[in-house]
Amino acid sequence: MFGSALPPSQPGSLALSCTLHRLPGAVTPTHSLQVLPSARCCPLAPAKPRQAMEGEPTLRLRIFDLNCWAIRYLSKRRQERVRLIGDTLRREGFDLVLLQEVWSEQDYSDLRVKLAGCYPFSHYFRSGVIGSGLCVFSRFPILDTLLYQYSLNGYPYMLQHGDWFCGKSVGLVIIKISGIIFNVYVTHLHAEYCREKDAYLPHRLVQAWELAQFIRHTSKAADVVLLGGDLNMHPEDVGIRLLRGWTGLRDAFAEAMRFEGCKNGCTLVPDNCFIDKSELLPFPLGIRIDYILYKAISSFTVKCEELKTTTGPALGTDIPFSDHEAVMATLHIQRRGQPVGAALGAADLALADVVTEARTEVGVGLQAAQRQRYSSGRMAVLALLLLLLQAAAALGILAGLGTEQPFPKLSFCLLAFLALGVLVLATGLHLFHTMEVKMLHGTKDQMGMALRALQERPSEG
Amino acid sequence: MFGSALPPSQPGSLALSCTLHRLPGAVTPTHSLQVLPSARCCPLAPAKPRQAMEGEPTLRLRIFDLNCWAIRYLSKRRQERVRLIGDTLRREGFDLVLLQEVWSEQDYSDLRVKLAGCYPFSHYFRSGVIGSGLCVFSRFPILDTLLYQYSLNGYPYMLQHGDWFCGKSVGLVIIKISGIIFNVYVTHLHAEYCREKDAYLPHRLVQAWELAQFIRHTSKAADVVLLGGDLNMHPEDVGIRLLRGWTGLRDAFAEAMRFEGCKNGCTLVPDNCFIDKSELLPFPLGIRIDYILYKAISSFTVKCEELKTTTGPALGTDIPFSDHEAVMATLHIQRRGQPVGAALGAADLALADVVTEARTEVGVGLQAAQRQRYSSGRMAVLALLLLLLQAAAALGILAGLGTEQPFPKLSFCLLAFLALGVLVLATGLHLFHTMEVKMLHGTKDQMGMALRALQERPSEG
Repeated sequence: MFGSALPPSQPGSLALSCTLHRLPGAVTPTHSLQVLPSARCCPLAPAKPRQAMEGEPTLRLRIFDLNCWAIRYLSKRRQERVRLIGDTLRREGFDLVLLQEVWSEQDYSDLRVKLAGCYPFSHYFRSGVIGSGLCVFSRFPILDTLLYQYSLNGYPYMLQHGDWFCGKSVGLVIIKISGIIFNVYVTHLHAEYCREKDAYLPHRLVQAWELAQFIRHTSKAADVVLLGGDLNMHPEDVGIRLLRGWTGLRDAFAEAMRFEGCKNGCTLVPDNCFIDKSELLPFPLGIRIDYILYKAISSFTVKCEELKTTTGPALGTDIPFSDHEAVMATLHIQRRGQPVGAALGAADLALADVVTEARTEVGVGLQAAQRQRYSSGRMAVLALLLLLLQAAAALGILAGLGTEQPFPKLSFCLLAFLALGVLVLATGLHLFHTMEVKMLHGTKDQMGMALRALQERPSEG
Repeated sequence: MFGSALPPSQPGSLALSCTLHRLPGAVTPTHSLQVLPSARCCPLAPAKPRQAMEGEPTLRLRIFDLNCWAIRYLSKRRQERVRLIGDTLRREGFDLVLLQEVWSEQDYSDLRVKLAGCYPFSHYFRSGVIGSGLCVFSRFPILDTLLYQYSLNGYPYMLQHGDWFCGKSVGLVIIKISGIIFNVYVTHLHAEYCREKDAYLPHRLVQAWELAQFIRHTSKAADVVLLGGDLNMHPEDVGIRLLRGWTGLRDAFAEAMRFEGCKNGCTLVPDNCFIDKSELLPFPLGIRIDYILYKAISSFTVKCEELKTTTGPALGTDIPFSDHEAVMATLHIQRRGQPVGAALGAADLALADVVTEARTEVGVGLQAAQRQRYSSGRMAVLALLLLLLQAAAALGILAGLGTEQPFPKLSFCLLAFLALGVLVLATGLHLFHTMEVKMLHGTKDQMGMALRALQERPSEG
């Protein structure tokens, strides 16, 4: 059990995890679903009749998602917390564990060793300077993986924020359970440092769009799509509406039949001892930025039976797992009679509005990036001119045109070095903002194409 | 007609382009294939009976692929050549045009305006500082696009090579023709500057692997996969064997029933007036590095009826289109009775050898990157130490510990600036090589996972 950190589990709830159940009197299935052998942590147990009313076997999947806040040298009581997370995961025996902010490969290796018995399959996604921080532990074999690094992710010179150095990405692992193909995505989007004046909004929107596009394009052979991660967006933000609308993913919190945990499903709460309470002043209950989203693609249905969040210090300790609360979902996957297509239809117009809103924000970001590109370019040109002027003056003196040196040598040299430094820096900035402009422009175009497709659809139908 | 630049087309061959044909006496098809309305450039004409022996309608698709070598200010006679390319594309009316090295968006816009009548649909892929250079023109609507930027692409400090600044990528456009979904990929991999000692081989292998993985993961709902581009690999190179083996793509040159053009299908030939002949001394016939690859995924077959390359100056001019020859393929797409799975089977062992070979090369690159990361890190530490020493000395003097200054002020300042410069540069390099190590490591891991999957497969069957 999670102890006091977790809302009390129902008796026997562990035993229900990830098993396929046949109801009494159900017709023999003609498809490939098979009852799984019971794992050490997850013995077989009968499913609840409510979940299998159509007489088809039901697969129950328990998923754990957590932003671990495990930054080497910076995160408080990191090793203790990583140990705690590992112990809990081993004890609870989830089917799938999606972690973010495991920045240290050593922490990942330690977890892997500890969890080898219960989660024999795992993957760590490498990216950027520090790493993506993303990893997955699974009870079921991982068939394949793919990493997509977002094209925009903050600024390298914003050292105090540091997102750029993580190479933020979305990781995909493909898992097959009883013949059902799961495309499992884990991600962590750019942080929001100031909600009132969020300079990173266009970047986060580009990330949300790329995430949605990546999921759409890579999940076409999947039966079920799962996405877990720290999206750094409130539930009503345009980015999450874009992501959900464009992919058809459903929010486990909104869909759950049962919920236990922090009020409103918040995952960043003022009660957490690692949280700077002043940052959450406008949100006295906290905010919800960690999600588990899902959808069935082919002839399956997915329902969220239960969603939980942790609610403070873990069992037998005085600390929580992280500065974020963990999100835990229990999903029911069941085959249905016949495959259905993506039923967007009437929602297209609402989706078009969301895409338009996101596109406008990306456009605002594009204008800002163009201004920055221009001003850094101008700065580089000015520095170059100053250098050339100095070079001309120096050559003039060497050629004996001026009889005496007009400036003290030291100041002259210092000015030249300063100009050189500004030139290098401004050129670097100019190149960076050129890339930023290109990516924002590309995303705006892609969104425009999506809009046209959405607007044309009703007339076709 | 292409005139002297092109091998003479067969009479009426243009008229065969991208149309669906019904054979006399063929059974009525039960699927969604329909005869397309004739386009301006591509009127209907009867297909050859040889191509439709199973009595199903055949779709003919004519594809044009070219590395345009259109670098602003650097490429010779660029505007003239881009005009020439546009004129030829308009006259010849291909179905699909895949271009690389269209670095200038102005060139793309000019082409788009010129080709609007014949190719109403197009997409330009933006990426990196300069741009990916990739674009697609199509007679058929582009349903969706996606860009994947390779995680490694040379070094920013190798200014003379410049690949890093292009943000090399693979672009995907999805096109539907008569109910058949085509996933069309266009790409350009890192150049090879020295075949004997190819410092970029690990990066190009990572790109080939990412390209293969991207195609595999995004093409699962496609009926036909097409890949065109400058792969910068000879046909027997490990990267192209890896790409073909891992995706199942087939080489249009090797499969073509008819070929006309440069000997051995070479696309970089010494006769080309823009080529530095000395570079091709070891290859008197030239090299083949531009490809059109294809495969059918679901219940379709694809055959290459004809492959052509250009062979020199374009019609009515004294110049060729580019420093590369263009590749043109005529493909036949036909529905077959029943879908078949990817028939790798016996080829698995050979593929395992290729993956092992590629993984070894990536491992070599990883070691080199680790050494560079170490030496740049050491250099940064030394520069930092020197700076600290100077700071201590300066403080000592200010505090009056030393009565007289031991160094001339100018040298002291110059040394400090030098140390600062080295510190910044070495830190940048260290960060860059850290990213390189991460990506090489990640790819090596992924290849290892692929190897295990390949080795386990026979025992399962």
